[in-house]
Amino acid sequence: MRILLVGAGGVGTAITRIAARRPFFEHMVVADYDLPRAKAAVAALGDKAHRFTPVRLDAADEEAVTATLREHRCDVLLNATDPRFVLPLFDAALAADADYLDMALSMSKPHPDRPYQKVGIKLGDEQFARTAEWVNRGRLALVGMGVEPGLADVFARYAADELFDEIEEIGIRDGANLTVEGYDFAPSFSIWTTIEECLNPPLIYEKDRGWYTTEPFSEPEVFDFPDGIGPVECVNVEHEEVVLVPRWIPAQRVTFKYGLGEEFIGTLKTLHALGVDRTEPVAVRTDQGTAKVSPRDVVAAVLPDPAELGDRMRGKTCAGTWVKGVKDGRPREVYLYHVVDNEWSMREYGSQAVVWQTAVNPVAALELMAEGVWKGAGVLGPEAFEPRPFLDLLVEYGSPWGLREQ
Amino acid sequence: MRILLVGAGGVGTAITRIAARRPFFEHMVVADYDLPRAKAAVAALGDKAHRFTPVRLDAADEEAVTATLREHRCDVLLNATDPRFVLPLFDAALAADADYLDMALSMSKPHPDRPYQKVGIKLGDEQFARTAEWVNRGRLALVGMGVEPGLADVFARYAADELFDEIEEIGIRDGANLTVEGYDFAPSFSIWTTIEECLNPPLIYEKDRGWYTTEPFSEPEVFDFPDGIGPVECVNVEHEEVVLVPRWIPAQRVTFKYGLGEEFIGTLKTLHALGVDRTEPVAVRTDQGTAKVSPRDVVAAVLPDPAELGDRMRGKTCAGTWVKGVKDGRPREVYLYHVVDNEWSMREYGSQAVVWQTAVNPVAALELMAEGVWKGAGVLGPEAFEPRPFLDLLVEYGSPWGLREQ
Repeated sequence: MRILLVGAGGVGTAITRIAARRPFFEHMVVADYDLPRAKAAVAALGDKAHRFTPVRLDAADEEAVTATLREHRCDVLLNATDPRFVLPLFDAALAADADYLDMALSMSKPHPDRPYQKVGIKLGDEQFARTAEWVNRGRLALVGMGVEPGLADVFARYAADELFDEIEEIGIRDGANLTVEGYDFAPSFSIWTTIEECLNPPLIYEKDRGWYTTEPFSEPEVFDFPDGIGPVECVNVEHEEVVLVPRWIPAQRVTFKYGLGEEFIGTLKTLHALGVDRTEPVAVRTDQGTAKVSPRDVVAAVLPDPAELGDRMRGKTCAGTWVKGVKDGRPREVYLYHVVDNEWSMREYGSQAVVWQTAVNPVAALELMAEGVWKGAGVLGPEAFEPRPFLDLLVEYGSPWGLREQ
Repeated sequence: MRILLVGAGGVGTAITRIAARRPFFEHMVVADYDLPRAKAAVAALGDKAHRFTPVRLDAADEEAVTATLREHRCDVLLNATDPRFVLPLFDAALAADADYLDMALSMSKPHPDRPYQKVGIKLGDEQFARTAEWVNRGRLALVGMGVEPGLADVFARYAADELFDEIEEIGIRDGANLTVEGYDFAPSFSIWTTIEECLNPPLIYEKDRGWYTTEPFSEPEVFDFPDGIGPVECVNVEHEEVVLVPRWIPAQRVTFKYGLGEEFIGTLKTLHALGVDRTEPVAVRTDQGTAKVSPRDVVAAVLPDPAELGDRMRGKTCAGTWVKGVKDGRPREVYLYHVVDNEWSMREYGSQAVVWQTAVNPVAALELMAEGVWKGAGVLGPEAFEPRPFLDLLVEYGSPWGLREQ
């Protein structure tokens, strides 16, 4: 397998470090808009760098991406950029007859009149609309294959297959007790993506009602996270699992709640009230004359790079899937989860916990694809595949998952 | 008198509208970085536009400013830009042998080690350092001649001359009950300047201790503003009056408190925690390639232009000087103030209240300079001049001031 990794940010860099230890692929081309960043990711692999080639590539330039896939004879494109680049990379992969894997879905657009009641364009709609093309070409686009979405969807499929006869609700719950020394405000994941997730109208699925939206930060609940993290206030957030899970798994209700905490919610609300969360460019004076910039890019540029904060971070992050339903005629409730301790991921990989947890899953998925264990054609979510081999492989990667009966 | 007005933003535009009704000057050149903005300001004067010429000018380009002053044979430069441009404009005026007038002072720099206890470079230090050059050339730089600083300093001088024998404290107090329909967050004055004022360490003067600083938003107090505005929570803020007043008026203590309100303070704290209040440029992707932008400029570009919000604004703004001391052996406390009702300023001038209140003062000062009532050489604050003619002229401009015995 020859892989084109696009994006050498936090997650992309962690992907190279995890993949470098696995023999399943022949070569990985590491592409970034910022060539020194791609070079740094490869250089950091030391004596394992020989299977990696850094290149400069603009993820928005579909033709250039297709050309790079062809030039390096890549079988698969792994997208580790922010969700703005999903569509050009997705299209470029098909154009070059490559498989495709990402960790998010194409972006949503709120309903024009009633954004906080009705769905507009949903996450992934623009990718799923092209399913026929991928099926016809016999190519696989495995979408939403990070941790959330990704592992959380694998958990949902595992619960449906092995733990439940009927499912009432599947609720993804994400929480952490991470702190960053010396910073007033330092998100542990891409602020660009965090803003996108948290300020878009949260999405809920109900079997009788279909998909609908609510006000941001709705339905707060305190969820007790395992492994010493403890109770964290969680709120509804727009997330890919709510789109993906109901496509393959019968459940009465699917939700996603994020353990943001009160202070973080306040900060996001302020960003939104000011309008600096916006992506539409505004004209400002720059050292190159007047130019148009996306305010959200400026917020991201000002904040410390979350991937660089691992040394100052303490604590654990938890991703998981809470499932409520019936097994053998009796009510059952479980939380399937995956915890990464920042101390462990820094020591083992030099990557901070949240970034590492996102990165390990697409590498494991590629390994299953390379071995022919996971295969298919079309645009498919993680829940379309057998969950057991994936969960076993995670254990082999040294990062076991857990199950808590509630 | 021939005037070069630099800056055709909110305050600059209001200056043209106020000046257009006064015969004291021969011509005003209206300069802006953005020529269409200068042209729009002049065009809006209608049949009064003949004494005004719009030109394009970069306020940071000292040589270009000097050339413009010479080309149009201007006697005085009126600076209506943000405080970043004080020094180049101040120097350009002297180079062209013109008088100079601004509404702020050159910027401060916090103390490198103990920013919240000790002063570093104070507001205006870099202007006052050049006093000898202005005196030698016989030219006047009248600095800090807006409303606050400006009218507030005139009030302080008036109190010292006519209302008190001894002054214990002079405290500038600024408050409003303005609301803006349809906006979550819409500052009524330049956000660039508001951030600069509010997040720099607040400055306090005490006769025995000299100037010192505190933490931002220190010493909250509720001040009861006149004319129906009522009680507003005020906090210490870095402001020019605290530098200017003690240079000319004997007082035991000088403070400036701004009626920001809890929500606004919270927003400013969040901006600061995020770092988007910073002026040091960061590199971001723009439509012109990667360029360096000042995050604070982006915040300003995203927010609605406060000068354009007059139609949606309701309420009044109050600027004033509270003085506590002794007169004829008895304790006395007064608040000298100036209130502008947004409805009035919009109807009369099409300018919103805060911007109009800032703009009227430099126009009145120029009129006194043109008539030879206010004259001098060197770098002087408003309290260096006779206050009575100025206060009388305000009344003539249709904008009377008030005195409240406390």
